[in-house]
Amino acid sequence: MKVDKLPTIKRLPTYLRILRDLSTEGKDFVSSSHLAKVLNIEPILVRKDLVLTGIVGTPRIGYHISDLIRSIEDFLGWSDSLDVFLIGAGHLGTAILGYKEINNYGHRIVAAFDKDPLKIGTSVHGIGVLDIASVPELRKKMNVRLAILAVPAEQAQGIADFLVEAGIQGIWNFTSVNLDVPDGIITHREDLISGLAVLSVKMARHM
Amino acid sequence: MKVDKLPTIKRLPTYLRILRDLSTEGKDFVSSSHLAKVLNIEPILVRKDLVLTGIVGTPRIGYHISDLIRSIEDFLGWSDSLDVFLIGAGHLGTAILGYKEINNYGHRIVAAFDKDPLKIGTSVHGIGVLDIASVPELRKKMNVRLAILAVPAEQAQGIADFLVEAGIQGIWNFTSVNLDVPDGIITHREDLISGLAVLSVKMARHM
Repeated sequence: MKVDKLPTIKRLPTYLRILRDLSTEGKDFVSSSHLAKVLNIEPILVRKDLVLTGIVGTPRIGYHISDLIRSIEDFLGWSDSLDVFLIGAGHLGTAILGYKEINNYGHRIVAAFDKDPLKIGTSVHGIGVLDIASVPELRKKMNVRLAILAVPAEQAQGIADFLVEAGIQGIWNFTSVNLDVPDGIITHREDLISGLAVLSVKMARHM
Repeated sequence: MKVDKLPTIKRLPTYLRILRDLSTEGKDFVSSSHLAKVLNIEPILVRKDLVLTGIVGTPRIGYHISDLIRSIEDFLGWSDSLDVFLIGAGHLGTAILGYKEINNYGHRIVAAFDKDPLKIGTSVHGIGVLDIASVPELRKKMNVRLAILAVPAEQAQGIADFLVEAGIQGIWNFTSVNLDVPDGIITHREDLISGLAVLSVKMARHM
């Protein structure tokens, strides 16, 4: 992926959130300048962002909100609900299960897995915790492609190998490990330290 | 902050990690093309990134590694260890306390706070959990400027107001709420859904 597209892609969920709010308020159209103001970026950047999803606004009218929502969801592949496995039901995994936002963006955590016998069979935020050994069978049965990895760093690579072997195609990696995966397997690591860098620069410069 | 600087700032911790590894291996110099390869970006982008921190490489020699580390740390304001308060010792807060990476990047969580009497007085990953009511007094005594907010969404704004009142100047916000803070107070929200968007686009396009 071209690095210069990343900031646009990262902003798309924020557009979705704003557009859904406007739609709920009964609005039909929105201007790029309104979106720019809410996002605190330039209107030209809004138009460049949205063109990536294949939609162009009409001068003086703006964007049709429901078309724009559909266009962004299609671009992200979020039109259908995507089932996800959560791997690791420790503190981080439990926090992720409690993060309801995920459900608002086309994804649904359908099962959590752990290797700890004390956790297996329990339920966290209404999701059952299953034995990690059952991932291969259930992945096939439920046709799940995406897994959230929330295990201790020292187990991350081994469990990632196991998930890939089981047919998982995408790993949303919440560990601090850069995973080594075969070609064709997609990973994205949540790098919290990037956020700390942004905050630090803002604080040092009062921006 | 100019939006176009954000991707650079987010990459700076990764540069630091790579440079420290090279330094540990006994290397003194590094080329922009080597850094580009490890980061999977173009060499020209590496040079543009690093110029932001005020350093320019020497043709055919590259960058002096220890100078470059100092330059990035100074730019980020990470040269001195910065003390941080963690607000909220639930599952997310506990996961953050266990995320040792933070200590490698100039920050140190010195105390955790909660309002739950069952948590107050306990210790999580070696850090004591204190009564949130003691934040104002301890903030002043320890001269802490930065707080990590890991509380339930419905309490986020109220507790942020309380932190600002207590003299906290920066909030690293792990809740799903966009905080409303006075001018001069810096916040950065970890927006997990942005990461999900990047992963989704990569999976849809096999990039």
